[in-house]
Amino acid sequence: MKPAGKKRARAKSRVLKLAPVGNMVIAQSGGPTMVINESVVGAVLRAKRSKHITRILGARHGIRGILDRDFIDLGRESERTLEAVRKTPSSALGSVRHKPTPEECREVAHIFQKFNVRYFFYIGGNDTAEAAHIVTEECRRSHHDFVCFHIPKTVDNDLRQNDHTPGYASAARFIAQAFQGDNLDNRALGGVKIDVLMGRHAGFLTAASALGRKHEDDGPHLIYLPERPFSMTGFVSDVDGVYKKRGRCVVAVSEGIVDRMGDLIAAKYATERDAHGNVTLGGSGALGDLLARIVKETTDVSRVRADTFGYMQRSFHGVRSVVDEREAFAVGAKAAEFALRGERSGSVAIKRVAGSRYRVELKRVSLGSVAKHARSMPSSFIAKSGTDITSAFLNYAKPLVGALPRVGRLREIVVKG
Amino acid sequence: MKPAGKKRARAKSRVLKLAPVGNMVIAQSGGPTMVINESVVGAVLRAKRSKHITRILGARHGIRGILDRDFIDLGRESERTLEAVRKTPSSALGSVRHKPTPEECREVAHIFQKFNVRYFFYIGGNDTAEAAHIVTEECRRSHHDFVCFHIPKTVDNDLRQNDHTPGYASAARFIAQAFQGDNLDNRALGGVKIDVLMGRHAGFLTAASALGRKHEDDGPHLIYLPERPFSMTGFVSDVDGVYKKRGRCVVAVSEGIVDRMGDLIAAKYATERDAHGNVTLGGSGALGDLLARIVKETTDVSRVRADTFGYMQRSFHGVRSVVDEREAFAVGAKAAEFALRGERSGSVAIKRVAGSRYRVELKRVSLGSVAKHARSMPSSFIAKSGTDITSAFLNYAKPLVGALPRVGRLREIVVKG
Repeated sequence: MKPAGKKRARAKSRVLKLAPVGNMVIAQSGGPTMVINESVVGAVLRAKRSKHITRILGARHGIRGILDRDFIDLGRESERTLEAVRKTPSSALGSVRHKPTPEECREVAHIFQKFNVRYFFYIGGNDTAEAAHIVTEECRRSHHDFVCFHIPKTVDNDLRQNDHTPGYASAARFIAQAFQGDNLDNRALGGVKIDVLMGRHAGFLTAASALGRKHEDDGPHLIYLPERPFSMTGFVSDVDGVYKKRGRCVVAVSEGIVDRMGDLIAAKYATERDAHGNVTLGGSGALGDLLARIVKETTDVSRVRADTFGYMQRSFHGVRSVVDEREAFAVGAKAAEFALRGERSGSVAIKRVAGSRYRVELKRVSLGSVAKHARSMPSSFIAKSGTDITSAFLNYAKPLVGALPRVGRLREIVVKG
Repeated sequence: MKPAGKKRARAKSRVLKLAPVGNMVIAQSGGPTMVINESVVGAVLRAKRSKHITRILGARHGIRGILDRDFIDLGRESERTLEAVRKTPSSALGSVRHKPTPEECREVAHIFQKFNVRYFFYIGGNDTAEAAHIVTEECRRSHHDFVCFHIPKTVDNDLRQNDHTPGYASAARFIAQAFQGDNLDNRALGGVKIDVLMGRHAGFLTAASALGRKHEDDGPHLIYLPERPFSMTGFVSDVDGVYKKRGRCVVAVSEGIVDRMGDLIAAKYATERDAHGNVTLGGSGALGDLLARIVKETTDVSRVRADTFGYMQRSFHGVRSVVDEREAFAVGAKAAEFALRGERSGSVAIKRVAGSRYRVELKRVSLGSVAKHARSMPSSFIAKSGTDITSAFLNYAKPLVGALPRVGRLREIVVKG
């Protein structure tokens, strides 16, 4: 018994020695997810229990709120409010798509000194990790003793170092349920149905369209991912082939599909770029409409429809993965835990423990290792044809998404007339 | 006690005297809904208990299946299968968008005679009721003793004689939940978000976007319905006004909006018409993209996005209204009930009983009274501004859709900097 006690005492003294005392700021950045508020509440509830953290502030609209000194007092929010906000999709603190300039990062460091901010938690993807990284460097330069943690979220699931990222599983679940219905809708009326899904560089969300397949003839029958070059003639011939065989075809297409040169198919029709220089892919039906028009013009299929799933994938209220909400809360709490243990910076990464039962561990990784660059789907998840996923992907994604609603089908005993 | 017994005996003898003996055919037509299979199973389970019905056949893909003699034996489906199919969205028998010609209706009457079909149940909207009506006339002309019932369904909720139609409440619930999330997404990132919703002539689905509003500043902030003429300059000025006040704006637009001349705004961009001569509005993002482009070009708003909700509204698996599924089953069972009581034709209409508690009665109405023409939203449901709904609509729709997921919001106690 004694060694454990000693260990605890040692750990405690380490905290008392290392973790600074001061205020905390937490902020959200980039595209919202269905579970991003779980991470805020996870960090806030852990911080509330610490004497090292004086005030718990939320910056509204990410780094923009820090620059504007637009803070709210999260420490004074009731437990009841926090519990309700946890379960609510989209960034409760507001979000931002702004890449801070070096001057702005210096200004943030200056504001943190002025407000005695010693803890900064920034929830977002790889761009957000990069911003956190730069702010940390600036604080170090001005000798401000400061702890900075990035908390992962991204529906695209493209963060390096992670088995998967909070936000992905709920969006994937929404997509899987949508395709369960869409496949049946297409089965009832026939024709070609093209669905365009989120995922700029990584096909994880588009691949999730396959999670609800049950019968041999269930769609999606074709899946186009950003990881494989897209050719328009190949696409038309694939669709025509499935249609000739089945009288119908459901297609899942990533918004991020690129041609052999790596150029976005959608880019020719896009007019906007965001602050990070990325082409704006969401909020337009152009890619789906283009693909539908080409199928209509070059095949005999009379009924061709396209839907672009849009922002619903990340914001729909009422469809969530249980694993996702639990993990999103846990990474927020764990970031606070690492910070209060005396770690000065890092990101929380989700690592899957090998074994038959789904289990994860949360590890600290460096900000630099998740910043800037994104990851793609591994080749083992993509079928050789390039237009389907593998059972390795199904094994990977099913525990994240959870059991899907049942689908009933008639036996269809044909009557001889 | 005795009078009730006598009454029952009288009712029974009336059935024995009037209802013919023979086979039954049931079919589904038009756009699928999330609960349309409830109606099939409702009718089949009731028919199974009757000695007047010999075989229970399903025609695949509506009237097309009858013409092709493409029947399946629903009487041999297990209870377990039927229970699973009930809970599954989209038309399990397959659907069709085909308006039968007079020759085809005569052919159907001929096939019904040949197959000794004495009961025909056709599930669909007003076009489907019209087809049932014509087939009934043809059977009468050929002196085939025949019972034909239309079973109502339509997500648009535009069937006459009905307080509301099965399929509507589940689609409305999906839309309400989507807007709960979309409003929060827009609150987090700002800008203008335009969502295009189903509803060719009736604004009921678009109006459902407002059901999840809770706080004074919650979107949708503007709602454009087919019942009020749409002017592009009015639209841009409305959006700009809301944006200037709130820094954001969520807009719900019906795909069926028309100008002062009654011409579809979307029609200029549509290329297709269906068998009923209607412009194809679904399966394209053109209207949303058009509206977004015009806002971008004529205002100072930098972030403008459009989503078209598409087929998910009617087919998404896992979001359903409890009232809707119960009523969809009930109208199917009731149609069989009417038929076996000796009625020769009609449709089942849902009438709401006045009173504080939500309650409905199912009545038989004539086929002609629901066929052909559709209904619109009553003026009492539309705000004077023309860009919002009234509390009368909320009182109408809330019991149908049921309690929505909770939305939590921070108190946002501002910190003086």
